[in-house]
Amino acid sequence: MNAPITALAPSDTERPDRVQSTFAGDLAAYMDQVGRTARAAAGAMATAGTTQRNAALTELARRLRASQAALLAANRQDLARATTAGLAAALIDRLTLDTKAIEQMAEGVEQVVKLADPVGVVFDARDMPSGIRVAKMRVPLGVVGIIYESRPNVTVDAAALAIKSGNATILRGGSEAIASNRLLADLIADALAAAGLPRDAVQLVDTTDRAAVGLLVAMPQYVDIIVPRGGKGLIERLMRESKVPMIKHLDGVCHVYIDAAADAAMAIRIADNAKTQRYGTCNTMETLLVAQPVAARILPELGRIYAAKGVELRGDDTARALLQATGIACSAATEEDWRTEYLAPILSIRVVAGLAEAIKHINTYGSKHTDAIVTNDEAAAARFLREVDSASVMVNASTRFADGFEYGLGAEIGISNDKLHARGPVGLEGLTSVKYVVYGHGETRG
Amino acid sequence: MNAPITALAPSDTERPDRVQSTFAGDLAAYMDQVGRTARAAAGAMATAGTTQRNAALTELARRLRASQAALLAANRQDLARATTAGLAAALIDRLTLDTKAIEQMAEGVEQVVKLADPVGVVFDARDMPSGIRVAKMRVPLGVVGIIYESRPNVTVDAAALAIKSGNATILRGGSEAIASNRLLADLIADALAAAGLPRDAVQLVDTTDRAAVGLLVAMPQYVDIIVPRGGKGLIERLMRESKVPMIKHLDGVCHVYIDAAADAAMAIRIADNAKTQRYGTCNTMETLLVAQPVAARILPELGRIYAAKGVELRGDDTARALLQATGIACSAATEEDWRTEYLAPILSIRVVAGLAEAIKHINTYGSKHTDAIVTNDEAAAARFLREVDSASVMVNASTRFADGFEYGLGAEIGISNDKLHARGPVGLEGLTSVKYVVYGHGETRG
Repeated sequence: MNAPITALAPSDTERPDRVQSTFAGDLAAYMDQVGRTARAAAGAMATAGTTQRNAALTELARRLRASQAALLAANRQDLARATTAGLAAALIDRLTLDTKAIEQMAEGVEQVVKLADPVGVVFDARDMPSGIRVAKMRVPLGVVGIIYESRPNVTVDAAALAIKSGNATILRGGSEAIASNRLLADLIADALAAAGLPRDAVQLVDTTDRAAVGLLVAMPQYVDIIVPRGGKGLIERLMRESKVPMIKHLDGVCHVYIDAAADAAMAIRIADNAKTQRYGTCNTMETLLVAQPVAARILPELGRIYAAKGVELRGDDTARALLQATGIACSAATEEDWRTEYLAPILSIRVVAGLAEAIKHINTYGSKHTDAIVTNDEAAAARFLREVDSASVMVNASTRFADGFEYGLGAEIGISNDKLHARGPVGLEGLTSVKYVVYGHGETRG
Repeated sequence: MNAPITALAPSDTERPDRVQSTFAGDLAAYMDQVGRTARAAAGAMATAGTTQRNAALTELARRLRASQAALLAANRQDLARATTAGLAAALIDRLTLDTKAIEQMAEGVEQVVKLADPVGVVFDARDMPSGIRVAKMRVPLGVVGIIYESRPNVTVDAAALAIKSGNATILRGGSEAIASNRLLADLIADALAAAGLPRDAVQLVDTTDRAAVGLLVAMPQYVDIIVPRGGKGLIERLMRESKVPMIKHLDGVCHVYIDAAADAAMAIRIADNAKTQRYGTCNTMETLLVAQPVAARILPELGRIYAAKGVELRGDDTARALLQATGIACSAATEEDWRTEYLAPILSIRVVAGLAEAIKHINTYGSKHTDAIVTNDEAAAARFLREVDSASVMVNASTRFADGFEYGLGAEIGISNDKLHARGPVGLEGLTSVKYVVYGHGETRG
């Protein structure tokens, strides 16, 4: 922890009630100090070289491994509190660190070391008639605020990406992970200091007071971007309150459209994979659209696969008739189904007349996340790519590929449904900005 | 004008008082209709081909020239009202259309036709180990809201850029130009229709009720980006009210730093040009920083040039002593001077120890717009480019080059001081987004 901030923020033992407390004026002063300190550290981070930032990361990996026992002990405190508080098993699972998770964190940091440094890269140079050369330079954004829930590994993953991209970071983890996060933040600060970088370049908001989140997202003078990693409730709250731009996504209502010109075997393989490879991910298909001319051929076979895997089907009248005729259960989909991200073994199915209706359905009901067409018709594919207004649009591939690693970004700070700045899977570049650099020889404007 | 909207919006003759009116519930319904109609038109614009969008622009240029008499007549109505209302001469000047201004609008539109179409361009393709090919495609943003003050030519300039980039547009011009803007909007709608595009793809907010602006910037469901073109007061108001991202800049507090390793003649030429070529532009230098070792050599000569051109000088103690010793008047600069965009023949001057102090001054007092160093020291130049946190950073060139045309963008919708999405001069690309396009051969995720 960064000493001056700890001094302002009372410790858990002093204020066992603080989850409920509002901190009065002190919290605002504390957050202001965190912001000011981060802004100051951002300058040093932006001017640090690649070697120095990588050295901090390598040192962090070393310290994570060396602090295994202490990390497990801190995590046990969190787990004990969570168990007493009666947290759900899934939450406790996400909160838990074990030796494997600690090793994975260390390896993750080492992978970030290996990524190309985006900072300082100059590109798109062109010589203008005036004599000046105009180019662009990639630079850090400045201060990145990361708001997340129970997983303590996010503390390390997010800090590593922010350090690599030359930013200062303010981390606001879930209150249930506070003991684990404090120790992880200490290790990060120690690693930064060992590499000659400011300890304050990564700060943990050291209070479980929920009002701290509201203050963090209302400091545009200190924070350049907010990355929320959490459920829809958190993100909707932040969208209402934030004065700072966010890299966020709310829903992944993803579609696969099986075109009349699809290869049937490929269509079935992709529609199966997009739904059933993992149910809980944002790039999982939630609605299947099938072109009417091929529905009778494809839907019964696909239905059998889904039924065998226990996927509940909800269809429009045509889909239901086709499925029920071959003995596969399919309830009636409601208007709400088309808008729902199930994150579960449930799939809604609609038979559409063709491409135009499929595009219209996706642009109406989808969440602008990831949508795929299966077709051998090049013109249909081109139109789908162009007209579907989503962050990732695919031809003949599973929606499950919408992922920073699969896209070759090397790492992923989040996925964005927004159309500005960063869209789709966001890697290191999403934590950078671009400025114009102009090289002259004494040119003046006439 | 677009018929259904005119039906909702009372005309000038019906409501001569409407500048003051609040429109009650009707205004909200009207703006909601404008937004919904724009969103619908955005779909058609995004899928229109280059030829079709260019045809609309060519037709617009033709109609502008053919409607010269009608435009001058409409503009005379605005001018008469402005004169009666006692508007300042500068405002009336900006409001005035003459035959030359109309021809310039038409030529501007024809220049936009010649620009490369950014829409649909696919780039950064790479083949991944999974077999999929991942690339990026440039696509329109959707709906662009443009809020501007008295110049009616902005109606045409902004509409042309938005049409070229495949967006729908909502224009909100100054109330003093309403008659001119209405006719211009009619011509734009007619040109769109002639090219087979929706008339509603460019809509003028057909009311002078100021509350319309507040509603326009609070419709993120309909409007993807707001481009405010106006004074600081307008932009500060929008920053408080807007729920939609903006491409904006507040201030241009630009600097030239003359380094100890500068070529003296080049430094004087650049510092002269950056200040005196035009006083009222945002990329004009407002503060000159001079390295102490060369101040005695450079400042008196520069001071004489500024004095001869009637530039008022305000300096720190060292600068004043050097200037006054050679008989050049220089008052004492206050803390406020360092933060001030004069937009006038006034210059603040500070003598700094060297590069580090210059960078610190710029990052403290500047507005992240445009800053230049004059130096023959490559290391100093590289450090300045990297560490000065501004949209445009220059070596050995006048700050006056920070401009969409000088940067080869072909046109400029605005200049952004922000670090996200668009930074510095913003051309057609600033009105576009990028999505991922994925080409597979039936790949599924394992």
